[in-house]
Amino acid sequence: MSKQVPGKFVTFEGVEGGGKSSNIAAVKTFLEAQGKQVVTTREPGGTPLAEEIRTTLLRPRDEPVDEMAELLLVFAARAQHFNTFIKPALAKGTWVLCDRFTDATYAYQGAGRGLSVDTIATLETLVQGDVRPDLTLLFDLDVGLGLERARGRGALDRFEQQEQVFFERIRTLYLQRAHTESYYRLVDASASIETVRADVQTIITQFLSC
Amino acid sequence: MSKQVPGKFVTFEGVEGGGKSSNIAAVKTFLEAQGKQVVTTREPGGTPLAEEIRTTLLRPRDEPVDEMAELLLVFAARAQHFNTFIKPALAKGTWVLCDRFTDATYAYQGAGRGLSVDTIATLETLVQGDVRPDLTLLFDLDVGLGLERARGRGALDRFEQQEQVFFERIRTLYLQRAHTESYYRLVDASASIETVRADVQTIITQFLSC
Repeated sequence: MSKQVPGKFVTFEGVEGGGKSSNIAAVKTFLEAQGKQVVTTREPGGTPLAEEIRTTLLRPRDEPVDEMAELLLVFAARAQHFNTFIKPALAKGTWVLCDRFTDATYAYQGAGRGLSVDTIATLETLVQGDVRPDLTLLFDLDVGLGLERARGRGALDRFEQQEQVFFERIRTLYLQRAHTESYYRLVDASASIETVRADVQTIITQFLSC
Repeated sequence: MSKQVPGKFVTFEGVEGGGKSSNIAAVKTFLEAQGKQVVTTREPGGTPLAEEIRTTLLRPRDEPVDEMAELLLVFAARAQHFNTFIKPALAKGTWVLCDRFTDATYAYQGAGRGLSVDTIATLETLVQGDVRPDLTLLFDLDVGLGLERARGRGALDRFEQQEQVFFERIRTLYLQRAHTESYYRLVDASASIETVRADVQTIITQFLSC
Protein backbone atom coordinates (compact mmCIF):
# COMPACT_ATOMS: atom_id res chain seq x y z
CA MET A 1 0.00 0.00 0.00
CA SER A 2 1.43 3.39 -0.93
CA LYS A 3 1.92 5.95 1.81
CA GLN A 4 -1.13 8.22 2.14
CA VAL A 5 -0.41 11.91 1.38
CA PRO A 6 -1.94 14.01 4.19
CA GLY A 7 -4.77 16.35 3.22
CA LYS A 8 -4.42 20.11 3.41
CA PHE A 9 -5.95 22.22 6.15
CA VAL A 10 -7.42 25.44 4.75
CA THR A 11 -9.14 27.98 7.00
CA PHE A 12 -11.32 30.98 6.15
CA GLU A 13 -11.12 33.97 8.48
CA GLY A 14 -12.40 37.52 8.83
CA VAL A 15 -15.17 39.52 10.47
CA GLU A 16 -18.76 38.77 9.46
CA GLY A 17 -20.11 39.87 6.09
CA GLY A 18 -16.98 39.07 4.07
CA GLY A 19 -18.49 36.22 2.07
CA LYS A 20 -16.62 33.33 3.68
CA SER A 21 -19.47 30.81 3.45
CA SER A 22 -20.20 31.10 -0.27
CA ASN A 23 -16.48 31.04 -1.07
CA ILE A 24 -15.92 27.89 1.01
CA ALA A 25 -18.57 26.16 -1.11
CA ALA A 26 -16.93 27.44 -4.31
CA VAL A 27 -13.46 26.26 -3.22
CA LYS A 28 -14.87 22.82 -2.41
CA THR A 29 -16.38 22.53 -5.91
CA PHE A 30 -13.12 23.74 -7.48
CA LEU A 31 -10.96 21.29 -5.52
CA GLU A 32 -13.26 18.36 -6.18
CA ALA A 33 -12.99 19.13 -9.90
CA GLN A 34 -9.21 18.66 -9.41
CA GLY A 35 -9.89 15.20 -7.96
CA LYS A 36 -9.40 16.08 -4.28
CA GLN A 37 -11.40 14.61 -1.40
CA VAL A 38 -12.82 17.64 0.44
CA VAL A 39 -14.89 18.24 3.58
CA THR A 40 -16.20 21.58 4.82
CA THR A 41 -16.76 22.39 8.46
CA ARG A 42 -16.86 25.32 10.86
CA GLU A 43 -15.80 26.58 14.28
CA PRO A 44 -16.97 26.72 16.90
CA GLY A 45 -18.75 23.50 15.98
CA GLY A 46 -18.27 20.70 13.49
CA THR A 47 -19.46 17.78 15.66
CA PRO A 48 -22.68 17.39 17.70
CA LEU A 49 -20.90 18.11 21.01
CA ALA A 50 -18.95 21.04 19.53
CA GLU A 51 -22.13 22.48 18.02
CA GLU A 52 -23.76 22.22 21.47
CA ILE A 53 -20.85 24.24 22.87
CA ARG A 54 -21.29 26.74 19.99
CA THR A 55 -24.91 27.25 21.05
CA THR A 56 -23.76 27.88 24.63
CA LEU A 57 -21.17 30.38 23.38
CA LEU A 58 -23.37 32.35 21.00
CA ARG A 59 -26.66 32.58 22.87
CA PRO A 60 -27.22 36.04 24.31
CA ARG A 61 -27.58 35.78 28.11
CA ASP A 62 -28.12 38.06 31.10
CA GLU A 63 -25.24 36.50 33.06
CA PRO A 64 -21.95 38.26 32.24
CA VAL A 65 -19.64 35.68 30.65
CA ASP A 66 -16.15 35.52 32.12
CA GLU A 67 -13.52 35.98 29.37
CA MET A 68 -11.52 32.94 30.47
CA ALA A 69 -14.67 30.79 30.53
CA GLU A 70 -15.42 31.91 26.97
CA LEU A 71 -11.87 31.11 25.85
CA LEU A 72 -11.96 27.64 27.43
CA LEU A 73 -15.34 26.89 25.84
CA VAL A 74 -13.89 27.83 22.44
CA PHE A 75 -10.95 25.46 22.97
CA ALA A 76 -13.19 22.68 24.37
CA ALA A 77 -15.22 22.76 21.15
CA ARG A 78 -11.95 22.89 19.19
CA ALA A 79 -10.47 19.87 20.99
CA GLN A 80 -13.54 17.78 20.15
CA HIS A 81 -13.61 18.99 16.53
CA PHE A 82 -9.87 18.77 15.96
CA ASN A 83 -9.24 15.37 17.56
CA THR A 84 -12.34 13.54 16.35
CA PHE A 85 -12.92 15.16 12.92
CA ILE A 86 -10.18 17.40 11.48
CA LYS A 87 -7.10 15.34 12.38
CA PRO A 88 -8.52 11.98 11.20
CA ALA A 89 -9.73 13.59 7.94
CA LEU A 90 -6.31 15.12 7.22
CA ALA A 91 -4.62 11.82 8.06
CA LYS A 92 -6.54 9.98 5.38
CA GLY A 93 -5.71 12.55 2.72
CA THR A 94 -8.89 14.63 2.81
CA TRP A 95 -8.72 18.41 2.42
CA VAL A 96 -10.45 20.19 5.32
CA LEU A 97 -11.99 23.61 4.59
CA CYS A 98 -12.86 25.22 7.92
CA ASP A 99 -14.89 28.39 8.51
CA ARG A 100 -12.74 29.99 11.28
CA PHE A 101 -10.13 28.29 13.44
CA THR A 102 -7.60 29.37 16.08
CA ASP A 103 -6.73 32.60 14.27
CA ALA A 104 -10.30 33.66 15.11
CA THR A 105 -9.50 33.03 18.78
CA TYR A 106 -6.47 35.33 18.63
CA ALA A 107 -8.79 37.88 17.01
CA TYR A 108 -12.02 37.58 19.03
CA GLN A 109 -10.84 36.44 22.48
CA GLY A 110 -7.38 38.02 22.19
CA ALA A 111 -7.82 41.40 20.51
CA GLY A 112 -11.59 41.51 21.12
CA ARG A 113 -11.81 40.45 24.77
CA GLY A 114 -8.27 41.38 25.78
CA LEU A 115 -6.92 37.94 26.75
CA SER A 116 -3.16 37.54 26.38
CA VAL A 117 -1.49 36.02 23.33
CA ASP A 118 0.53 33.77 25.66
CA THR A 119 -2.60 32.28 27.22
CA ILE A 120 -4.10 31.56 23.81
CA ALA A 121 -0.82 30.12 22.52
CA THR A 122 -0.62 27.79 25.55
CA LEU A 123 -4.09 26.40 24.83
CA GLU A 124 -3.38 26.21 21.09
CA THR A 125 -0.39 23.93 21.73
CA LEU A 126 -2.27 21.90 24.36
CA VAL A 127 -5.07 21.16 21.89
CA GLN A 128 -3.38 21.09 18.48
CA GLY A 129 0.22 20.18 19.23
CA ASP A 130 2.16 21.66 16.31
CA VAL A 131 -0.64 21.49 13.72
CA ARG A 132 -1.44 24.86 12.13
CA PRO A 133 -3.40 25.68 8.95
CA ASP A 134 -1.59 25.07 5.67
CA LEU A 135 -3.39 28.04 4.18
CA THR A 136 -5.61 30.78 5.65
CA LEU A 137 -7.69 33.08 3.46
CA LEU A 138 -8.42 36.33 5.29
CA PHE A 139 -11.54 38.00 3.92
CA ASP A 140 -10.83 41.60 4.83
CA LEU A 141 -13.27 44.47 4.53
CA ASP A 142 -14.38 47.67 6.22
CA VAL A 143 -15.98 46.72 9.55
CA GLY A 144 -19.00 48.98 9.06
CA LEU A 145 -19.75 47.43 5.68
CA GLY A 146 -19.31 43.88 7.00
CA LEU A 147 -21.60 44.48 9.97
CA GLU A 148 -24.24 46.05 7.74
CA ARG A 149 -24.22 42.92 5.56
CA ALA A 150 -24.20 40.53 8.57
CA ARG A 151 -26.92 42.37 10.45
CA GLY A 152 -29.22 42.14 7.47
CA ARG A 153 -29.42 38.39 8.17
CA GLY A 154 -31.63 38.47 11.28
CA ALA A 155 -31.27 38.14 15.07
CA LEU A 156 -27.82 38.94 16.45
CA ASP A 157 -25.79 36.45 18.49
CA ARG A 158 -23.75 37.35 21.62
CA PHE A 159 -20.76 38.38 19.50
CA GLU A 160 -22.66 40.24 16.79
CA GLN A 161 -24.20 42.37 19.56
CA GLN A 162 -20.77 43.86 20.35
CA GLU A 163 -20.00 47.47 19.43
CA GLN A 164 -18.13 48.37 16.26
CA VAL A 165 -14.87 49.09 18.14
CA PHE A 166 -14.74 45.40 19.18
CA PHE A 167 -14.73 44.40 15.50
CA GLU A 168 -12.19 47.11 14.61
CA ARG A 169 -9.75 45.52 17.10
CA ILE A 170 -10.44 42.14 15.53
CA ARG A 171 -9.83 43.38 12.00
CA THR A 172 -6.55 45.03 13.08
CA LEU A 173 -5.35 41.80 14.71
CA TYR A 174 -6.22 39.73 11.64
CA LEU A 175 -4.29 42.17 9.41
CA GLN A 176 -1.29 42.01 11.78
CA ARG A 177 -1.30 38.20 11.62
CA ALA A 178 -1.60 38.35 7.83
CA HIS A 179 1.80 40.08 7.90
CA THR A 180 3.51 37.77 10.39
CA GLU A 181 2.07 34.31 9.63
CA SER A 182 3.31 32.83 6.36
CA TYR A 183 0.17 30.73 5.77
CA TYR A 184 -2.06 33.84 5.35
CA ARG A 185 -3.37 35.14 2.02
CA LEU A 186 -5.31 38.39 2.01
CA VAL A 187 -8.57 38.70 0.04
CA ASP A 188 -10.13 42.14 -0.54
CA ALA A 189 -13.70 41.23 0.43
CA SER A 190 -15.02 44.71 -0.34
CA ALA A 191 -14.72 43.92 -4.07
CA SER A 192 -17.58 42.50 -6.13
CA ILE A 193 -18.65 38.89 -5.56
CA GLU A 194 -17.17 37.92 -8.95
CA THR A 195 -13.83 39.59 -8.24
CA VAL A 196 -13.56 37.98 -4.79
CA ARG A 197 -14.42 34.57 -6.30
CA ALA A 198 -11.72 35.00 -8.96
CA ASP A 199 -9.13 36.15 -6.37
CA VAL A 200 -9.86 33.12 -4.19
CA GLN A 201 -9.51 30.77 -7.17
CA THR A 202 -6.14 32.34 -8.05
CA ILE A 203 -4.91 31.81 -4.47
CA ILE A 204 -6.04 28.16 -4.44
CA THR A 205 -4.50 27.53 -7.87
CA GLN A 206 -1.17 28.99 -6.71
CA PHE A 207 -1.34 26.92 -3.52
CA LEU A 208 -1.99 23.72 -5.52
CA SER A 209 1.04 24.37 -7.69
CA CYS A 210 3.46 24.68 -4.74
CA MET B 1 -13.65 51.01 57.42
CA SER B 2 -11.89 47.97 58.87
CA LYS B 3 -10.13 45.59 56.51
CA GLN B 4 -12.40 42.68 55.51
CA VAL B 5 -11.11 39.25 56.59
CA PRO B 6 -11.35 36.93 53.54
CA GLY B 7 -13.73 33.99 53.81
CA LYS B 8 -12.50 30.41 53.84
CA PHE B 9 -12.74 28.10 50.84
CA VAL B 10 -13.75 24.58 51.91
CA THR B 11 -14.21 21.78 49.37
CA PHE B 12 -15.79 18.34 49.70
CA GLU B 13 -14.31 15.55 47.61
CA GLY B 14 -14.61 11.81 47.04
CA VAL B 15 -16.31 9.29 44.78
CA GLU B 16 -20.11 9.16 44.78
CA GLY B 17 -22.03 7.69 47.71
CA GLY B 18 -19.82 9.11 50.44
CA GLY B 19 -22.41 11.47 51.88
CA LYS B 20 -20.86 14.77 50.73
CA SER B 21 -24.17 16.57 50.13
CA SER B 22 -25.79 16.01 53.52
CA ASN B 23 -22.53 16.89 55.28
CA ILE B 24 -22.17 20.14 53.33
CA ALA B 25 -25.59 21.16 54.62
CA ALA B 26 -24.62 20.20 58.19
CA VAL B 27 -21.35 22.16 58.02
CA LYS B 28 -23.25 25.22 56.74
CA THR B 29 -25.64 25.04 59.71
CA PHE B 30 -22.74 24.55 62.12
CA LEU B 31 -20.73 27.49 60.74
CA GLU B 32 -23.74 29.81 60.67
CA ALA B 33 -24.29 28.99 64.34
CA GLN B 34 -20.72 30.32 64.86
CA GLY B 35 -21.77 33.58 63.19
CA LYS B 36 -20.13 32.94 59.79
CA GLN B 37 -21.56 34.04 56.46
CA VAL B 38 -21.73 30.81 54.40
CA VAL B 39 -22.70 29.86 50.84
CA THR B 40 -22.85 26.36 49.41
CA THR B 41 -22.22 25.55 45.77
CA ARG B 42 -21.02 22.75 43.52
CA GLU B 43 -18.84 21.87 40.54
CA PRO B 44 -19.21 21.55 37.71
CA GLY B 45 -21.86 24.24 38.03
CA GLY B 46 -22.69 27.01 40.47
CA THR B 47 -23.89 29.65 37.97
CA PRO B 48 -26.47 29.37 35.16
CA LEU B 49 -23.75 29.17 32.45
CA ALA B 50 -21.65 26.73 34.48
CA GLU B 51 -24.71 24.55 35.14
CA GLU B 52 -25.38 24.54 31.38
CA ILE B 53 -21.82 23.27 30.86
CA ARG B 54 -22.44 20.65 33.60
CA THR B 55 -25.44 19.37 31.63
CA THR B 56 -23.27 19.13 28.50
CA LEU B 57 -20.60 17.24 30.47
CA LEU B 58 -22.86 14.75 32.24
CA ARG B 59 -25.40 13.84 29.56
CA PRO B 60 -24.74 10.37 28.15
CA ARG B 61 -24.15 10.66 24.38
CA ASP B 62 -23.35 8.42 21.43
CA GLU B 63 -20.48 10.65 20.27
CA PRO B 64 -17.22 9.66 21.98
CA VAL B 65 -16.05 12.65 24.03
CA ASP B 66 -12.43 13.63 23.53
CA GLU B 67 -10.59 13.71 26.90
CA MET B 68 -9.11 17.15 26.27
CA ALA B 69 -12.53 18.54 25.32
CA GLU B 70 -13.93 17.17 28.58
CA LEU B 71 -11.08 18.72 30.59
CA LEU B 72 -11.52 22.13 28.93
CA LEU B 73 -15.28 22.04 29.55
CA VAL B 74 -14.61 21.35 33.22
CA PHE B 75 -12.25 24.33 33.43
CA ALA B 76 -14.60 26.56 31.40
CA ALA B 77 -17.34 25.93 33.96
CA ARG B 78 -14.79 26.49 36.72
CA ALA B 79 -13.58 29.82 35.29
CA GLN B 80 -17.15 31.12 35.21
CA HIS B 81 -17.90 29.83 38.72
CA PHE B 82 -14.59 30.88 40.26
CA ASN B 83 -14.35 34.36 38.77
CA THR B 84 -17.99 35.41 39.06
CA PHE B 85 -19.08 33.61 42.25
CA ILE B 86 -16.38 31.99 44.46
CA LYS B 87 -13.73 34.72 44.33
CA PRO B 88 -16.12 37.63 44.99
CA ALA B 89 -17.75 35.69 47.86
CA LEU B 90 -14.39 34.95 49.51
CA ALA B 91 -13.31 38.57 49.04
CA LYS B 92 -16.26 39.86 51.04
CA GLY B 93 -15.60 37.45 53.92
CA THR B 94 -18.09 34.70 53.05
CA TRP B 95 -17.18 31.06 53.59
CA VAL B 96 -17.64 29.02 50.40
CA LEU B 97 -18.50 25.32 50.80
CA CYS B 98 -18.07 23.66 47.42
CA ASP B 99 -19.09 20.13 46.40
CA ARG B 100 -16.00 19.14 44.36
CA PHE B 101 -13.36 21.47 42.90
CA THR B 102 -10.04 21.08 41.07
CA ASP B 103 -8.97 18.06 43.14
CA ALA B 104 -11.86 16.25 41.42
CA THR B 105 -10.29 17.17 38.07
CA TYR B 106 -6.96 15.62 39.09
CA ALA B 107 -8.99 12.55 40.12
CA TYR B 108 -11.55 12.16 37.31
CA GLN B 109 -9.80 13.65 34.26
CA GLY B 110 -6.26 12.88 35.50
CA ALA B 111 -6.35 9.44 37.12
CA GLY B 112 -9.70 8.49 35.54
CA ARG B 113 -9.17 9.59 31.91
CA GLY B 114 -5.39 9.52 31.90
CA LEU B 115 -4.64 13.20 31.23
CA SER B 116 -1.31 14.44 32.57
CA VAL B 117 -0.89 16.21 35.90
CA ASP B 118 1.11 18.93 34.12
CA THR B 119 -1.75 19.72 31.75
CA ILE B 120 -4.22 19.97 34.63
CA ALA B 121 -1.81 22.08 36.68
CA THR B 122 -1.35 24.48 33.74
CA LEU B 123 -5.11 25.02 33.47
CA GLU B 124 -5.48 25.27 37.26
CA THR B 125 -3.01 28.18 37.36
CA LEU B 126 -4.55 29.81 34.28
CA VAL B 127 -8.00 29.82 35.88
CA GLN B 128 -7.33 30.16 39.62
CA GLY B 129 -3.95 31.89 39.81
CA ASP B 130 -2.57 30.79 43.19
CA VAL B 131 -5.93 30.24 44.95
CA ARG B 132 -6.33 26.73 46.37
CA PRO B 133 -8.83 25.40 48.95
CA ASP B 134 -8.13 26.31 52.56
CA LEU B 135 -9.55 22.94 53.60
CA THR B 136 -10.63 19.82 51.69
CA LEU B 137 -12.63 17.04 53.32
CA LEU B 138 -12.09 13.78 51.47
CA PHE B 139 -15.00 11.39 52.00
CA ASP B 140 -13.28 8.07 51.44
CA LEU B 141 -14.99 4.72 51.17
CA ASP B 142 -14.85 1.41 49.34
CA VAL B 143 -15.69 2.07 45.67
CA GLY B 144 -18.12 -0.84 45.42
CA LEU B 145 -20.08 0.39 48.42
CA GLY B 146 -20.12 4.00 47.16
CA LEU B 147 -21.36 2.98 43.69
CA GLU B 148 -24.05 0.79 45.19
CA ARG B 149 -25.33 3.76 47.21
CA ALA B 150 -25.06 6.18 44.25
CA ARG B 151 -26.69 3.85 41.75
CA GLY B 152 -29.70 3.43 44.02
CA ARG B 153 -30.54 7.07 43.16
CA GLY B 154 -31.77 6.57 39.59
CA ALA B 155 -30.52 7.10 36.02
CA LEU B 156 -26.73 7.16 35.64
CA ASP B 157 -24.86 10.13 34.13
CA ARG B 158 -21.93 9.79 31.69
CA PHE B 159 -19.44 9.42 34.57
CA GLU B 160 -21.52 7.09 36.73
CA GLN B 161 -21.73 4.75 33.72
CA GLN B 162 -17.97 4.11 33.91
CA GLU B 163 -16.67 0.74 35.11
CA GLN B 164 -15.54 0.21 38.70
CA VAL B 165 -11.83 0.28 37.77
CA PHE B 166 -12.28 3.95 36.68
CA PHE B 167 -13.46 4.82 40.20
CA GLU B 168 -10.71 2.72 41.80
CA ARG B 169 -8.13 4.90 40.00
CA ILE B 170 -9.97 8.00 41.23
CA ARG B 171 -10.02 6.80 44.84
CA THR B 172 -6.30 5.98 44.72
CA LEU B 173 -5.48 9.44 43.36
CA TYR B 174 -7.57 11.16 46.05
CA LEU B 175 -5.79 9.17 48.77
CA GLN B 176 -2.40 10.08 47.29
CA ARG B 177 -3.32 13.77 47.32
CA ALA B 178 -4.57 13.44 50.91
CA HIS B 179 -0.98 12.53 51.78
CA THR B 180 0.76 15.24 49.76
CA GLU B 181 -1.56 18.26 50.00
CA SER B 182 -1.60 19.88 53.45
CA TYR B 183 -5.18 21.18 53.11
CA TYR B 184 -6.68 17.63 53.03
CA ARG B 185 -8.50 15.97 55.93
CA LEU B 186 -9.58 12.36 55.50
CA VAL B 187 -13.08 11.25 56.56
CA ASP B 188 -13.92 7.54 56.79
CA ALA B 189 -17.21 7.65 54.89
CA SER B 190 -17.87 3.93 55.40
CA ALA B 191 -18.75 4.65 59.06
CA SER B 192 -22.30 5.32 60.22
CA ILE B 193 -23.97 8.61 59.27
CA GLU B 194 -23.69 9.79 62.89
CA THR B 195 -20.00 8.94 63.17
CA VAL B 196 -19.21 10.67 59.86
CA ARG B 197 -21.19 13.76 60.97
CA ALA B 198 -19.26 13.87 64.27
CA ASP B 199 -15.89 13.43 62.51
CA VAL B 200 -16.68 16.27 60.12
CA GLN B 201 -17.67 18.54 63.00
CA THR B 202 -14.40 17.76 64.79
CA ILE B 203 -12.42 18.66 61.66
CA ILE B 204 -14.30 21.95 61.23
CA THR B 205 -13.90 22.83 64.91
CA GLN B 206 -10.14 22.19 64.74
CA PHE B 207 -9.92 24.27 61.54
CA LEU B 208 -11.79 27.18 63.19
CA SER B 209 -9.36 27.16 66.13
CA CYS B 210 -6.26 27.51 63.92
